[in-house]
Amino acid sequence: MIRFESDYTEGAHERIMNKMVATNRVQTSGYGVDEYCERARQYIRTACGNEAVDVHFLVGGTQTNMTVISSILRPHQGVIAAVTGHIAVHETGAIEATGHKILTLPSDDGKITAAQVQQLYEQHWNDATHEHITQPGMVYISQPTENGTIYSHAELEALYEICQQHDLPLYIDGARLGYALASPENDLTLERIAELCDVFYIGGTKVGALMGEAVVFVNDRLKKDFRYLIKQRGGMLAKGRILGIQFETLFEDGLYMEVSQHAVQQALRIRDAFAAQGFTFRYDSSTNQQFPIVSHEVLDKLRTKYSFSLWEKVDEQHSAIRFCTSWATQVQQVDELVNDIAQLEPVSSLTGR
Amino acid sequence: MIRFESDYTEGAHERIMNKMVATNRVQTSGYGVDEYCERARQYIRTACGNEAVDVHFLVGGTQTNMTVISSILRPHQGVIAAVTGHIAVHETGAIEATGHKILTLPSDDGKITAAQVQQLYEQHWNDATHEHITQPGMVYISQPTENGTIYSHAELEALYEICQQHDLPLYIDGARLGYALASPENDLTLERIAELCDVFYIGGTKVGALMGEAVVFVNDRLKKDFRYLIKQRGGMLAKGRILGIQFETLFEDGLYMEVSQHAVQQALRIRDAFAAQGFTFRYDSSTNQQFPIVSHEVLDKLRTKYSFSLWEKVDEQHSAIRFCTSWATQVQQVDELVNDIAQLEPVSSLTGR
Amino acid sequence: MIRFESDYTEGAHERIMNKMVATNRVQTSGYGVDEYCERARQYIRTACGNEAVDVHFLVGGTQTNMTVISSILRPHQGVIAAVTGHIAVHETGAIEATGHKILTLPSDDGKITAAQVQQLYEQHWNDATHEHITQPGMVYISQPTENGTIYSHAELEALYEICQQHDLPLYIDGARLGYALASPENDLTLERIAELCDVFYIGGTKVGALMGEAVVFVNDRLKKDFRYLIKQRGGMLAKGRILGIQFETLFEDGLYMEVSQHAVQQALRIRDAFAAQGFTFRYDSSTNQQFPIVSHEVLDKLRTKYSFSLWEKVDEQHSAIRFCTSWATQVQQVDELVNDIAQLEPVSSLTGR
Amino acid sequence: MIRFESDYTEGAHERIMNKMVATNRVQTSGYGVDEYCERARQYIRTACGNEAVDVHFLVGGTQTNMTVISSILRPHQGVIAAVTGHIAVHETGAIEATGHKILTLPSDDGKITAAQVQQLYEQHWNDATHEHITQPGMVYISQPTENGTIYSHAELEALYEICQQHDLPLYIDGARLGYALASPENDLTLERIAELCDVFYIGGTKVGALMGEAVVFVNDRLKKDFRYLIKQRGGMLAKGRILGIQFETLFEDGLYMEVSQHAVQQALRIRDAFAAQGFTFRYDSSTNQQFPIVSHEVLDKLRTKYSFSLWEKVDEQHSAIRFCTSWATQVQQVDELVNDIAQLEPVSSLTGR
Repeated sequence: MIRFESDYTEGAHERIMNKMVATNRVQTSGYGVDEYCERARQYIRTACGNEAVDVHFLVGGTQTNMTVISSILRPHQGVIAAVTGHIAVHETGAIEATGHKILTLPSDDGKITAAQVQQLYEQHWNDATHEHITQPGMVYISQPTENGTIYSHAELEALYEICQQHDLPLYIDGARLGYALASPENDLTLERIAELCDVFYIGGTKVGALMGEAVVFVNDRLKKDFRYLIKQRGGMLAKGRILGIQFETLFEDGLYMEVSQHAVQQALRIRDAFAAQGFTFRYDSSTNQQFPIVSHEVLDKLRTKYSFSLWEKVDEQHSAIRFCTSWATQVQQVDELVNDIAQLEPVSSLTGR
Repeated sequence: MIRFESDYTEGAHERIMNKMVATNRVQTSGYGVDEYCERARQYIRTACGNEAVDVHFLVGGTQTNMTVISSILRPHQGVIAAVTGHIAVHETGAIEATGHKILTLPSDDGKITAAQVQQLYEQHWNDATHEHITQPGMVYISQPTENGTIYSHAELEALYEICQQHDLPLYIDGARLGYALASPENDLTLERIAELCDVFYIGGTKVGALMGEAVVFVNDRLKKDFRYLIKQRGGMLAKGRILGIQFETLFEDGLYMEVSQHAVQQALRIRDAFAAQGFTFRYDSSTNQQFPIVSHEVLDKLRTKYSFSLWEKVDEQHSAIRFCTSWATQVQQVDELVNDIAQLEPVSSLTGR
Repeated sequence: MIRFESDYTEGAHERIMNKMVATNRVQTSGYGVDEYCERARQYIRTACGNEAVDVHFLVGGTQTNMTVISSILRPHQGVIAAVTGHIAVHETGAIEATGHKILTLPSDDGKITAAQVQQLYEQHWNDATHEHITQPGMVYISQPTENGTIYSHAELEALYEICQQHDLPLYIDGARLGYALASPENDLTLERIAELCDVFYIGGTKVGALMGEAVVFVNDRLKKDFRYLIKQRGGMLAKGRILGIQFETLFEDGLYMEVSQHAVQQALRIRDAFAAQGFTFRYDSSTNQQFPIVSHEVLDKLRTKYSFSLWEKVDEQHSAIRFCTSWATQVQQVDELVNDIAQLEPVSSLTGR
Repeated sequence: MIRFESDYTEGAHERIMNKMVATNRVQTSGYGVDEYCERARQYIRTACGNEAVDVHFLVGGTQTNMTVISSILRPHQGVIAAVTGHIAVHETGAIEATGHKILTLPSDDGKITAAQVQQLYEQHWNDATHEHITQPGMVYISQPTENGTIYSHAELEALYEICQQHDLPLYIDGARLGYALASPENDLTLERIAELCDVFYIGGTKVGALMGEAVVFVNDRLKKDFRYLIKQRGGMLAKGRILGIQFETLFEDGLYMEVSQHAVQQALRIRDAFAAQGFTFRYDSSTNQQFPIVSHEVLDKLRTKYSFSLWEKVDEQHSAIRFCTSWATQVQQVDELVNDIAQLEPVSSLTGR
């Protein structure tokens, strides 16, 4: 079985493993104030082109989201997100468990627009009984989205302008940020992202690390006391160095983007192979997740050799499936998949979506 | 600087690192249902002498405590703990952040007694307005305690009997459980512990792993849906295998106890060295943490070469300090410390505690 | 200005005020264990035809909803509700503030169906990663709904059957329960309601009392320790007698239904007056809230003399408005309104909804 | 049985009842923005000598405490309070249920000092691992305390100075504030209190109203969005007028102080009667609660005719008991009690406290 079901089926990039082994006996302080964390912070500040940002390392995405969001909102405030956002659907109510409602906006491709945020904001404040309604307190987006799509520079700029107008901090979940930056359709840089939001995180777990997410606070007002929050929400590792070593390795000489580019290239080969056979896609993704729509016959055939995710039923005969690539995806395994796709029957027509 | 300040100053035991490197490219499912986790679970079930226990892997101690405790209590219930308990003093209010009060019992050595629990229980239920008071809902203890002391078999048995009488689940925080089991004064086994509580955890972070704690649910009634809770509280690693590999290594052939015994032996050498010079101790510890009371002159002298924790001021001239050993403590570094201690002036008399 | 904007524009029914004045100097115990509360409980048990139910008095609807719901759910569970449900839209995130997500189902008229609950339930448990998703833990409905519509006997029976099959406690928000029971279209009784759910409340605030809601626990499993929860959530009045006196008065000789019938009769007169002129309605309500759709010219004309709620814009020229009646609605004021409606221009055609 | 067990055994002062009856049919807006609430707010602003304060009406004390405190703290912060404080012991963990730890300070008489707050503050910030400890975020005191004692002007001034130095908002629980102001030992005024804290509440429930507490925000920074919080925590009454009418009546022409003075005078008569017989007191109270220490024989004798609270066992033969007076306490009933006390045997000697 060749696994394309997710971008976390292996351990970590070998350079990370080597560094962890090489430094294993070095003695350091605990809780993320060691030299590795410090150097990793510095590399990330440089990569963001902003020496003033605060950088913290947490363990996983759900933990990062709940810690950041609950550190920003007051009790009566909620976080605006796409109805498909990870916090809204795949975190077992972690945000609500910290006391906050998620104010969902409709979205098919995983993105939300400045206009939608503006409308929700107006709707709230124009309501005569707005004190009976959860107040919008911040905005959450994912880059790339859970559907593999990405915000363009113009879209992000428009969104952030509205957020700033209404004093709604913008938080970007970058669990797969590298894959957005590596997309051929991307027109954003890490520096620009750090200018177009208040706080974001650079995902490690899904981009080559064993685990770990680097939170970057840009907005000074939100920085205060965040280490308390990390500790309270269970995200402060005693051996914090483990996170530092990984992000140091990912950012000291470009490994993060190298890994991301590799994964995206392989994903696009899979995309192109499906497209060549006439298959269509559930989302227009140019990142490391691809969502071809296949008949159930094709699905069963692919399943005999590959593991992938069943994404959603499209009609009685067809489903969207998800193929993921990562730092660890082997070119020859993609070769094999691409060859097998080339043997598939052209997709039967969909009963109109 | 030789570090004795904590038991998490290095990475992980080399056998763990080797296994992680060796398995790095193996593809597995995510979220803790991979083969490594399964094997680790089986080893732990066997070590506990109970095939029916549920075993889950979380990342750190605070996370484990808040996840377990909030999974057990109803909203109006609190958890009974020593006033010195980790949850009461060193977790930034993580338990309260899940909505629950900690009902603290006085303790000097870190332990609580069956009689104290009985008294608090009676006090609550005899109060005419008990509905205005947080209801005791479970009991938390640490083995060993934060002060290095351990519960004897008789003490634990007595405590658990009271807990069972009053339907108060007993939870043991075993962040350093190995060091209790390795103590020369210990008369408990892992099997017996698994019979004398409802849920406990076997600490990895402080006993040779990079990070990770293995929660063991003994009481059937408390097992339900715990994986949801792990996810909600941010403890479910995408690459859950990392925890499985570590616990598999620690439990497949006795490494956990081997590591623990080494640390305790070295700690007792330090203890004996201080005692030989006439120093007294803040707590009567036979585990990997030692708390000698030293004059501030001695303290300053030791500081030039060793790092350790300043525990608490005892009087104007003296403080208790903490030396920690671990799997990584090197015998020759302890030799050096022991020699240096032997040169210290006998402790000046304390202004009576 | 004649107010039809809500059912809480006046104080309490005069018989309640009289009783409160008459008993003002009687000395009682506090916190709801006085003789008035006891008698009120007994009247309600009798009205429900079930001597085994537990009855508690709380102050308001949001408080009651958050106290009941948070007493039932475990942390990883959410409450299923219509997207229009009061808890979902008009309680400033009170449910989320207790840690729980609201799992909303689409609804136009305010009701949800057994089939919808069944589907959401299946969707959850069929998801391979259901532990990453908030688990459905109970069902919330309102009778009548926020839109004035009511569940029929058959609908409620079907819903409760599904709930029982899946161990999902069913909770009915009866903020305006009397108005449902007084509807000419109603085929349920209080006794039958007490058989077709696990817990519900009989609203006082909007049905003749100064304030107060009577929670009725039918399901034994949910009864435990609810007084602790009332206290913790701020709902336990020191002078609990105030609630007891009111519910005693409402239930000792039929005042609750008398008041409800009066309000519904007056509401139906308003409905009929609008209908006679050809106006249509946003919802098909037979209870004390009526939602005619009027042109903005009509709206402005009515506004000069009456206060009512602007419910929602229907198209550029039309809006739905809400007229509420209550125990205090005066017949001659409705006469006046009815006469004025009869003078209105027949409604201009809607741009197709 | 003559009841002295609490200050909430009757309804409300007759002038309040009369006003409620007289205004019962007046139609108003809901949710506390009616004319009665507005006038009550204005009277309170005037009484506080500060036109800029924000005044809100809530229903009860626990609700007020949890709403105010959770509106001020960030998640990692706790509230400093006396170990005997109402929030620490008699609110079923309501504060913790909003996510916050109570940082208790030892206190025998119910008061805390500026020095204690200073010490706790220093202890926190001097701790090298302070991020692992709940951060002190505000200070809670009660005036009078739960033990009937009061802060002097000098004590409050000193406390507030420390609070301001460390940016710790000071919140005063004034559930019985009138009784402090009416004490012969009091040297504070409402105006001065409004200068020496950031937010406080003027209790109605225990001082003549049916229920209701008036929260006064002095500090501008804390005022924002408090109505959202009231709604979310269940404290916003639909018929908010009920609270407005009561506070209007209490503050329009001095009723609040009139009622308070009556209660304190009667309490002091009881105190003097016990003192005259040689009884001692558990606390040195000059307010409406008195805590004589009596032998169990005396206790049993008193019990045959009067109800009062059993406060705490003092030794095997003696207990402290509590007598409460209120607006409703009848002079002739106190006459009777005073006469009966005069017949009691002088108190037997206590086994040394």
